Order: sequence, then C-alpha cells, then structure tokens
Amino acid sequence: MAVTKLFDPSGIAVVGASDTPGKMGYEAMRNAIEFDGPVYPVNPSASGTVFDREFVASVTDIDGDVDLALLCVPAPVVPDVIEECGDAGIEGAVIFAGGFAEAGEDGRALQERLVEAASEGGVALLGPNTSGFLVPADDLYATFATDVETIPAGSLAIVAQSGGLAYALAFQAENRGIGVSAMVGLGNRANVGFREAIEYFDEDERTDAILLHVEGSDDARGLLKTCKAAETPILAYNVGEQDVGDFAKSHTGALTGEYELYEAGFAQYGVPTVRSTAELLDAGTALATCPRPNGPNVGVVTAQAGPGIAITDRLKAAGATLPSLSEETQAVIEEILPGITFSANPVDTGRPMPEFGDVVAAVARDENVDIVLVYELYEGGIGYPTDALEGLVADVDKPIVFATGGPDAALAEELPKLESLGIPTYRTPERGADAVAALVQYARRNQAPDAARTGEEVSADD
Amino acid sequence: MAVTKLFDPSGIAVVGASDTPGKMGYEAMRNAIEFDGPVYPVNPSASGTVFDREFVASVTDIDGDVDLALLCVPAPVVPDVIEECGDAGIEGAVIFAGGFAEAGEDGRALQERLVEAASEGGVALLGPNTSGFLVPADDLYATFATDVETIPAGSLAIVAQSGGLAYALAFQAENRGIGVSAMVGLGNRANVGFREAIEYFDEDERTDAILLHVEGSDDARGLLKTCKAAETPILAYNVGEQDVGDFAKSHTGALTGEYELYEAGFAQYGVPTVRSTAELLDAGTALATCPRPNGPNVGVVTAQAGPGIAITDRLKAAGATLPSLSEETQAVIEEILPGITFSANPVDTGRPMPEFGDVVAAVARDENVDIVLVYELYEGGIGYPTDALEGLVADVDKPIVFATGGPDAALAEELPKLESLGIPTYRTPERGADAVAALVQYARRNQAPDAARTGEEVSADD
Repeated sequence: MAVTKLFDPSGIAVVGASDTPGKMGYEAMRNAIEFDGPVYPVNPSASGTVFDREFVASVTDIDGDVDLALLCVPAPVVPDVIEECGDAGIEGAVIFAGGFAEAGEDGRALQERLVEAASEGGVALLGPNTSGFLVPADDLYATFATDVETIPAGSLAIVAQSGGLAYALAFQAENRGIGVSAMVGLGNRANVGFREAIEYFDEDERTDAILLHVEGSDDARGLLKTCKAAETPILAYNVGEQDVGDFAKSHTGALTGEYELYEAGFAQYGVPTVRSTAELLDAGTALATCPRPNGPNVGVVTAQAGPGIAITDRLKAAGATLPSLSEETQAVIEEILPGITFSANPVDTGRPMPEFGDVVAAVARDENVDIVLVYELYEGGIGYPTDALEGLVADVDKPIVFATGGPDAALAEELPKLESLGIPTYRTPERGADAVAALVQYARRNQAPDAARTGEEVSADD
Repeated sequence: MAVTKLFDPSGIAVVGASDTPGKMGYEAMRNAIEFDGPVYPVNPSASGTVFDREFVASVTDIDGDVDLALLCVPAPVVPDVIEECGDAGIEGAVIFAGGFAEAGEDGRALQERLVEAASEGGVALLGPNTSGFLVPADDLYATFATDVETIPAGSLAIVAQSGGLAYALAFQAENRGIGVSAMVGLGNRANVGFREAIEYFDEDERTDAILLHVEGSDDARGLLKTCKAAETPILAYNVGEQDVGDFAKSHTGALTGEYELYEAGFAQYGVPTVRSTAELLDAGTALATCPRPNGPNVGVVTAQAGPGIAITDRLKAAGATLPSLSEETQAVIEEILPGITFSANPVDTGRPMPEFGDVVAAVARDENVDIVLVYELYEGGIGYPTDALEGLVADVDKPIVFATGGPDAALAEELPKLESLGIPTYRTPERGADAVAALVQYARRNQAPDAARTGEEVSADD
C-alpha cells in the first residue's frame, strides 16, 4: 500500500465538513485550511461556504487537485465514501470514526467492507478509530484535535497505535522544545499499519528517528521485519506487559499477548525499548542527535558521586557495559587531577572544577569507550565545560550525553549551548542514563541475540 | 543523639570562614548570614570582618548564642575542632571535608577519633563528607553550595545519603514548584544517620512526607525499625541493585549489598520505593498532599484509551489491584454516558466531554475504590472538570490523582486549580501511574508481606 499521497498530499477534502464550531467536521476544517494547498469542504446537506471555501456535495464533484480525504462522517457511511474516494482518484483517507473492528461482530463486518472498498479504489486508509496525523513542516494537520498548530517541526516521527497516546507524545515534545517530522495515530490499521508507516518515514528526509507506540499489533513479525530492514533508528514504547483484559481489545481492535515476542525481536534488531512516553522522547532525541555509536561500551564521568552511583546502577540494570579505561587514559586523568576521588569507570571528580571538561575529553578519547555519559550538577562560578566539549565533538565521533541538575534559570541559559553542539542534555541523572541505555541497545543491533534475555531466537524471516 | 540543635539552631559558627570568594569558608558564610540569628566567622589566622561580622579565633571565644558549627576546615584538624565545639557547648556540627571513613585505613582512624571527640562533647555530627543541609522556612542554609536561597519552603523533607543527590532533588523540586521543609545530605553518618534524621522530621510539624535516598547504609535494620515506627509517610529511592563495585564504597563509606533487604523491609512497612529522583518527588507530593488511602484498590478513569492502557499496564506491573466497580456505579456511569466506550475499571469515556467530571465522581464514590487515578488529555473547549472535582474532594476522603498532557500554556493555567483542591497533577500518564503505585504501596503498610515478592519476611525487631 503506497502511502505517499496520504502523508504528502497536494490537496485535501474534508468529508462531513460543518460550519458549526465544536463539531468534528468544523474542527477538522479549521485545522486543514492551515495547509498550503487546496482544501475542499464536502457535505451533501450543506450549502454556501465554510472558512471561505464553497461546499461540494461529493468528493467526485471536486474540480481540482485532491488526494487526501478526511472523513468526519459516522461509521456506517464510511465504506460508501471510500468507494467514492476511489472513483475520484483520491489515494489517501483518514477515518476518525470508531465502531469498526474494535466494536464487536457488526464492527468487524463493517471494517471488512471498508477494506474491500479501499482495495478496489486503491485508497490508503489511516484508521478507522484514529485522531489522525500531522506534519508540522507542511502545516498539514489532518485531525480534529485542538491546539495542534504550535507543535514544532523537527526530526522525530511519532508512529503510535493509539491516537490519544500520539497526542500525549506530541504535546510533551512541544512543551520540551522537541520538534516532530510527523505524528501519526494508526488506530485500527485497516490497511495502513506499522510496516507502511515505518517504510514511509524511513525514506523521509526530515526524519532522523522513528518512535513507535505498540499496544499489540496483529502483524508482529511484519513489524519486526520492517524494523530490521530500516536504515533510520527506530525506538519502541511497547505497552502490554500485563494483562489489561478486554480494555486493549476494545481500543484499537488489537490482538494483545505478543508483548514478549516484541521485546525479544526489538532487542535482536537494535530497536531500543522504553518504559514511558517521556523516555521515548528522551531516547529518540539521543538517537536523532548523536553520531551512531560504534559499540555498546559506556564511559561515565561524574562531578558528584551520588548521582554517578545512581546512573551506574541504572545503566548496569539496563545491561550496559562500563569497560575499564586504558592505562593511558587513567594516567592522563591522574595528571589533570592528582589524587582524584575515583578514576576507574565511572570517573568521579568529587566536585566540578575548571579541569572537568579535560577529564571528559580524556574519557571520550579512550578507545575502550563508545558512548560517553557526563553528569555535572550545576555550580555557579564553574558552569559547564562548553568550550572543552565544543573542541571534543569536532574531533571525536562518539555520542556524548550530558545529564545535570540545578536552578532552571542557569539550565535554560547554558544547556542550549551544549545541545547546539549535538550533545543531548537531560535534567535528571536517570533520564541521562536511560537515554544512554537506548544508545547501547541500538549499538547491539545485528549482534547475536542475548539468549539469556530473549529465551529464544526470534526470526522475522519466516 | 539529639539533633534538635543541629537542625534548629539559635546561632551559627562558621569555622574556617574566609573573605576570599570561591573558598568554601566564604561560600558557607555567604549562605549562613541569610539566617535570622547570630552568625560568627571563626578563623585563628584571620582578622577584621567578613560580611560585617568580626572574626574570632576559636569557637570557645564566641561570646553569644551558638549551637551549630559549620566546619570548612581540612579533615586532619576536624577532631580537634569538634573537641572545642564540645567545650563551647555547641551541640551540632556539619563537617564538609572528605577524607574520613570513605578514604581507606587512615581515614577510618580519623573518623573514629572524630566520633570519640563528638561523643565526649555531646556534638551531633552531620557528615563528614557532606554538602550540608538547608531549612528554607528558617532561611537556614548550612552549606557551601550556590543558588540555594531560591529553593522554596514546603512540606517534603529530603534525607539523602549523598549530598550531591540531595541537591539534585532539591533543584528538581524548585524547578517544579515543589517546596521542601528540609534538605539533608547525610554523607558518612558518623553519629547522625537515617534513624536520627527520620525521627527528627517525623516530629517536625512542617514535614508531611520524608523522602529518603539510600545507597546502602551500615544500619539497615535500624533504618527499617525507624520507618516502621514513624507516623509521617516515608518514601525511599533505594540505589544499589547492581554491583557498582568500589565506587559506592569510595563514596560515603557505605557497606553495599543490602539492597534486597531494604526492598523487602520497605515493602513490609509501607515505605514506597521508587526508581528515580523525579519519581521520588512525584510520589512524595502525592503522599504529602492526598488524604491517606484506606486501601490499595485503584479506580482508573480515562478520557483516552491509549494512555489509559499504558497506565493500567504500569499499575498492574507495580502490583496494584483494579477492582470491579459496583453494579450501582456501572449503572450510574451508563446513565451519564449511554453506550460508553468501556465502563469496567478502567472507565474509558473515549473522549473528554462535559460529563467527564460526573463519571470521575461516580468512580470515586464507589465503595470498592480506595484511590482514584484520572487521565484526561487537555482538549480546548472542554478543559478540566474542576468544578465537579471541587465538590467531590469536599465530600470523598480518598486520594484523587490527575494525569494529563497538552499544551504548556493550558496546563500552567488550569492545573494549579486542581492542585489547590489537594489533587496532585502529573504531566504524563506514567508519572501519574507511578504516583498512584506509591499510594498503593503505602496503603499496604502493616499488611502481611507479599511472600512472592520478598522471598522472606523481614523483621526489624531483632
């Protein structure tokens, strides 16, 4: 199923458009007209205009360039509208309505009719039972949700099984100043699922990392196979460890219970798995920003022991390796800071000091180290080793992740300087550790699976 | 060891005070003079004044009211200064210097001398090897750290084994607008440890919850016994699941390897354990703010299925129980929202709507439910059910926790209204779930230990 017209249309039809504020057909129009291309309100019962666009009775009546339809109509009429879309040459449609596969026997029958109509007409369907998608860089807001225009453009593609969770992620990204290349809620995945979306965003030049929310798809092996083949780093928030009973089934019509299969498969193919929405954005930012790690060995440098121990504990729990530093590196560190608190890995300088950046540089240059995690609680008068790190990133092609704490005013002024160097920053020790744990998982892609962890090898090829 | 004079002094001596900015003895003075009481700089090599206070040569020369000494002097002279403190009738001292029990054989001998001097003189010691403590409501900043005056006063007492981690927590609290009654870094715990600090803050009227950071104390059973006896809710960030080798030992001189013992003991005595600094503040806020739960049964109401499933998965993984709602409650909900998406527990309304608050109220009134967790992604035009919840909290004495997502501007305006009702709010689904999981752990205090989890019963009485 080609989804190019769905996510990159030249014109939009809003089917069920309305001039009554609060109605889905109004809210979808309000969002759609932000798009820099023709937008057509479609409603056989309406006349006149809405947002200065003239109503047309059917998608087949549109005289112009349109390849994406947003369906703001009740479930029972959806298959007929999709048939008309096919007749009109519209190749992509978003179906907001619920009442399909997630809603019992009748719903499943309706979804079958829908898929048949789409198949005959060659229409790629997002949904049904979705809140849509958005591509901020194109001002493309294919949704009825409010407040979406301020979600900033960037390089993370969010592909979520749940529309609600997609928005929870997109608003978190906005509030943290993280941009998205796209946000997609897949919903029931009638004929566009994870595979199609991942393949599309893997090719998308704006996308540097693909963030998945998986609730238990009915095509686990297909999803894993696509992850294996993709060039772009992929991360997954895999929900469903516990039995949440009929609740999940009633949601997007998914077969649950494939949680373990996903965990094993993701581990095998270097798809870092995370345990929360916040962590998905944290880890996604690290993978989109940093050079790709050459291996999973982490060097930790901390200016305060307590947070450093918390970080080390968490990294080890996530399966990370902290290799010994070379004798040469240890000698360099001892020369910089004679009598240093702890010069193994982690390196603990005890407090921040002007030479802290030189210590970080020594660790980053160590050939045993693939990924560097720095923790430094902000201390007035010392600040961050921005200059030293600027020289370092120009010279050493390894991920450097910076975790810190301190008063907001200082962080807000200083951290953007580090971020502009390609160093992702995190405001708690644990968030920094989790981001690095994701880099470690990614670095292990295509290595032999960890049998102790997965229990069995997972093949995406059968 | 009585620690009242340590944490609630009438006057302060800064030993090793200096007029050179950047030196520890200067920074400690700068912080100390914020205190509304006499502050004496002590330095036998200095003359004149610093911050308009005249130097004295020794604590025994102070002519005035002083019962807390801040020692900004090198380790080797610390025992002698403490002896002088005892002679001068000073009952509390903070020792910033490292180089004691954490630093090998000589350091251990030095700490023994120190403890002996303190014992003879009746001096309660915070540290050595600590960055001190602060009590914002008293403008008491017994520390050399910078930027501490803006940490707001409130009801959480932070008691951390590590001074660095204590500051990481305090700055996070400040940035999130959470106030602290005190922040204490215990360091080496020469004669003031977790027991003494917990007992003090358990009696402290300003403190509504005590937040521990535990790295592996040498008095595990004493700590657990104190937790069992305390009236104030206690939470713990227990670090050290993994072997971090000599690093932890080099830090605060702790014996590690007691992690499992703590986990079991904390579970038994209703001390919720968390996995990060952020979660410690999240859970602490819930325990300090909410009515104490009468039981561990959680009712979940969500306006969006995807986040609701993530929440349910996480709650169940944390061992929470989601009981069936009574038939009466289900009937009420069906009456409010005929054909509702999912009316078991969780209740999923599919989208926010004006009746959402009534649904929350119905669940909160259910006798099967002890704790209520609400998730609602912000939607313009609907907003939050503040009015309905205001009536509810006046009427139902149960914890109600509110998790959400949405644009910052809306959240910043609307969430304080909920917080002023005693409803803690969280900006991701998972953070809300974790806070509720802590309430569940607390509710299970004094119940029989979960043998499957702890493996063995832990007794704090032997």
